[in-house]
Formats: sequence, structure tokens, C-alpha cells
Amino acid sequence: MDFTLTVLGTASAMPVTGRYQSAQVLRVQGRFFLIDCGEGVQRRLLQFRVPMMRIDAIFLSHIHGDHVFGLPALLSTLGMNGRRKPLNIYAPENFSPILKFFLSYYGEWLPYEIRHIPLTMKAPETVCSTKTLEILAFPLNHKIETYGFFFREKMPLMNVRKEKIAEYGLTLTEIGSIKRGEDVVRSRPDGSSDVIPFAEVGYQPYIPRSYAYCSDTAPFPELAGWLRGVDLLYHETTYLDEMAEQAAQRYHSTTLQAARCALEAGARKLVIGHYSSRNQEILRYQAECRTVFPDTWAAEDGDIFEVPLVRPE
Amino acid sequence: MDFTLTVLGTASAMPVTGRYQSAQVLRVQGRFFLIDCGEGVQRRLLQFRVPMMRIDAIFLSHIHGDHVFGLPALLSTLGMNGRRKPLNIYAPENFSPILKFFLSYYGEWLPYEIRHIPLTMKAPETVCSTKTLEILAFPLNHKIETYGFFFREKMPLMNVRKEKIAEYGLTLTEIGSIKRGEDVVRSRPDGSSDVIPFAEVGYQPYIPRSYAYCSDTAPFPELAGWLRGVDLLYHETTYLDEMAEQAAQRYHSTTLQAARCALEAGARKLVIGHYSSRNQEILRYQAECRTVFPDTWAAEDGDIFEVPLVRPE
Repeated sequence: MDFTLTVLGTASAMPVTGRYQSAQVLRVQGRFFLIDCGEGVQRRLLQFRVPMMRIDAIFLSHIHGDHVFGLPALLSTLGMNGRRKPLNIYAPENFSPILKFFLSYYGEWLPYEIRHIPLTMKAPETVCSTKTLEILAFPLNHKIETYGFFFREKMPLMNVRKEKIAEYGLTLTEIGSIKRGEDVVRSRPDGSSDVIPFAEVGYQPYIPRSYAYCSDTAPFPELAGWLRGVDLLYHETTYLDEMAEQAAQRYHSTTLQAARCALEAGARKLVIGHYSSRNQEILRYQAECRTVFPDTWAAEDGDIFEVPLVRPE
Repeated sequence: MDFTLTVLGTASAMPVTGRYQSAQVLRVQGRFFLIDCGEGVQRRLLQFRVPMMRIDAIFLSHIHGDHVFGLPALLSTLGMNGRRKPLNIYAPENFSPILKFFLSYYGEWLPYEIRHIPLTMKAPETVCSTKTLEILAFPLNHKIETYGFFFREKMPLMNVRKEKIAEYGLTLTEIGSIKRGEDVVRSRPDGSSDVIPFAEVGYQPYIPRSYAYCSDTAPFPELAGWLRGVDLLYHETTYLDEMAEQAAQRYHSTTLQAARCALEAGARKLVIGHYSSRNQEILRYQAECRTVFPDTWAAEDGDIFEVPLVRPE
């Protein structure tokens, strides 16, 4: 029941020794989601032992080079490795000509289909839904069209207490109702009925977990509300607090702005990255955030953050 | 008086741990020429301490991804670093739409001009000529339009022996003639003249050096002749000899084919690379080549090969 984030790159636009540019993999219950594709992402996947052939979908926040220049090589390699499964790429509308151009030059022999799902929403919207997971996209506040992503597990089916199955002699149909969170209603011949409340015989196996990705963005009022209650929040911190003016000019966030967002959102844990090449003292970034939001972690390339499975009391 | 090749990447199309894809830098008398741009080239330049801001020109053999996917990030970084000097890119004609597309999406704020010099020749042709260096391009035999490059120093100006300057009382004009390899002719009043042969008072300071780059290509009859007398030859060896059939199908070369080309060309030293991801025992590649051409070196990423300065006897 994994729910882990692997940070593949923590640099911002300029290349820096030891840091690649933005890319992450979220693994949820055996599925792999790639978020942003800075140059060299395929090399990082190899290095950090993420099985690239198992990537389910790709999410691109925006088309600035430090978030997409690794895509052509990755898409080509997936093809050379024999991927057949169609690949969904969730990305802003202006990604469409980029994909079209890539396919016109390098797509002829690709053995799999690439589908671009354009993002245009003005507020959080579900873009992908599986049995166990819901993925939403929402706009950010950057120089160009940019989106964040919110991954949250769906409420799991209830488990049924074994001793209650025997006690009530529950049928398979009745067990099915309880799993879906419905009370069992048994009709009597006299027209009245007995109710077995699902809450008595069933229990929630775990609390759904969530992760949100916000890069690149300047702060804006709605954001914290959209991230309400997220377990793990990645928020860019391109700049230290002393660079607030530069951050505003470039539509980026400072440490304190990211930390305030995490605090206001009621996030459990904050992971930061996308550090300016001008200042690589990442413990300073972390320390500044912690003055506002103590559970902040300054990511290094290759760091893994797990959202643990919590069972209700 | 440097003339050194730094190999930045030795992998072929598939990414391999520890090897980047094709890219090299040739440094000649303080000028830097980048040859091919596999993904991550800017990272390799940083890592191997090649000053990327001093790159004079870029030479692209062909537009297959493993030779060009590092270009967008590099061009962007040069811009962010404030390059102003126009950048010439020598590349096949079909590179033009790629550059155009890149510029339309990422070129708006680039502070320098990028000029594409299209390659269309059917035999070696000079594409660039400086005071001290001549660079030729020539066609290779690959699946798509592909070119090799030949870098050769021009014949240097003659040096003039100091003792001869005094002996003959040479004027500045006369010294200039000798430097250009011309005899000095002094007219006498009676109409006759004295000749001071340049070979007596001047000497060639060094023998011009040369480097040729051949990737990717299947063997073809004209190639060795075009490389005649090259000091340092890089020739791809995607496959070991046992894979000759596959090499032919894919328009690549085996170890023995590359070695035979070096031998026939009368090259001094052969450097090989572009190894198939299926076989990484590069000492086998080297050993196979050496059965034909003993002075063969299987390059690793980061290897530096110097062409030493040789003074004539």
C-alpha cells in the first residue's frame, strides 16, 4: 500500500552540479505518475531505480524548459524499450504544438500512442480517476499558463469484521453493501425491517492519503484552500526570504510564502525544492520554512518521502 | 597550443548508467567547438569543466535524438548566462525546422543570435575557416542525412631564425615575406637580383594537426580517402564484429570496420565510442579494433585525447 514521492530533480532553471531540474515520481499503490520532466529525467529514473516502463501517466505543470526538456529523450526511450500502452500527458494547452512537433520528427516509429489531455481549468478539476485514486489539476500563478496537481486516494471500501459475519450470518450481497458503506436492511414477513448499521460491522481500513505539487508559482489567495488537508505538499521555494522582490517579479515563491501556504492549508508535511542556482545552502531554505511550518524538508535529488498508511482509531 | 578532444558521451541511442549520449568538445588553440549534443550535454560540460560560455560553434552530425536532445537546454542556459555572441550551428538541412520551432517557443528572450548553416555537400567541403583552422564537413552513410567533420590546422606562418635576421640585415617587409613562405628578392642597381630562399632563413614552427569525427555511419568506399592522414580519428563502433549484420541493417559500423577505415586512412590514432547498450564491455571493442589498428582507444565519458604539437625535424 505504497504512497511515496521520489524527487528526481531539485534545481531551478540553471543547471547546477548534483541537481537535475524539476521532475518527480509519485507511486501510489503500485502505479507510477511522473510529474514534470526536466532534462535528464530518464537518467534520474535509471539512477533512482524507478521502473520507467511502468509509468502510467505524465503531468506537466508548464512548458518552461526546465520542466519539459527531458521529455523527448524519455518518450523516445520508452519507444525503444517497446512500450505499447498509450501514454496520457496532462499538460497546458500550449504543450500541444510541442508534442505535435516532436511526433512529426520522432514519432513515426513510436510503438505507442501519446495523448495530450489539455488543462484549461480556472479552479481544481478532476482530470483522472481510477478505482482508488483521483487526480485533480488546478491553476497556479506563474509567468505562463501553469498548473498544480493534487493526487488523493479515494475512500477505500469498508472492511467487514469477521466475527460479525458469523454473528449476523451475513450473505455475500450484504457484505457487498457494507463494503460500500451502506446499512444492511433485512425485511421481515410482517413488512417491518431489521437494520444492521454498516458502522457496527464494518470499519474503514485506512485513511485516504494525498499529495499536492505546486511548481512554479507566486502566492495567491485561493491556493491554500485548494490544498486543504493535504498530507504531503511539495511547494517550490526558488528564493530565500531576502529575495522576496525578485520572487514577485519572476512569479516564484520564497521559503516563507511556501511555508505559510502549507500552514494555512493544514498540510501535514512540506517538501521544498526548485532552489535558485544563486543560493545552494538548502538548509537555510529549510530553516526559514521551519520558522513558520516546522515539518518542512528541503529535498535533495533522490530523496524519497513516504505518506504512511494510517488506520483509523 | 592546445589541440584536445574531450569526449562528453559514449552511449548510443539507449541511456546507460555512467554514459551520456554523443557529444564532444574539440579545443584548438583556445577555441572550443562542440560536436553533437546528446541529452545532458550542458551537465557534462559543467562536470568536465569545459567553459560552455566559450563555445565558438556547434556541429551536429544528424538530427537523431541521441545527438541533439541536449541542445534546447544548452541553448537556453547560454542565454540565461548572458551570451551575446552569435552562435553558428552547422547541421543538416532538416535541422532547420527544429531550430525554428525551438526559437518560436524558447527564443524570444534569448540575448544572442543562432545561425543555422545547412549542410548539403556530397563530398568534403570547407564550412568554416579561421586564421589558423579549417573545418570541413562531409557526408556519412546513415539512415538519415548525416555528416562528419574534419578539423585541421592551417599551415602556420614560418618562423624566422634570429641569427639570419642579423646575417642578412632583414627588413620587416622581408621578414613578412619569409613568414608567408616567400623567398626574399633584392634587386641590385645593375638590374640583377639576389635571392634569399625562405627555406634557409625560415622554418615551420609545427606540423598542422587534425581531427575527424565520424558518427553515425555504415562503411562506404570514399570515407578513408576523405580522412587521409588525419592525426586523431573518432569513428563510431556501435557494434562488435559478431553483430555485423545488425550494424549493416542499422547503418552503423562494427569495430573492425572502424579500424579498417582508420588503417586505410593512415590515421595516427583511433578513438571509438557510441557503444550499443547491449554490450558494455568496452575493452572488447578496443581489443577487436586493435587486431586491425593497434593505436585504438575505447573512450569513456570524460576522456581527453591530445594531439601533441610536433615540430618538424
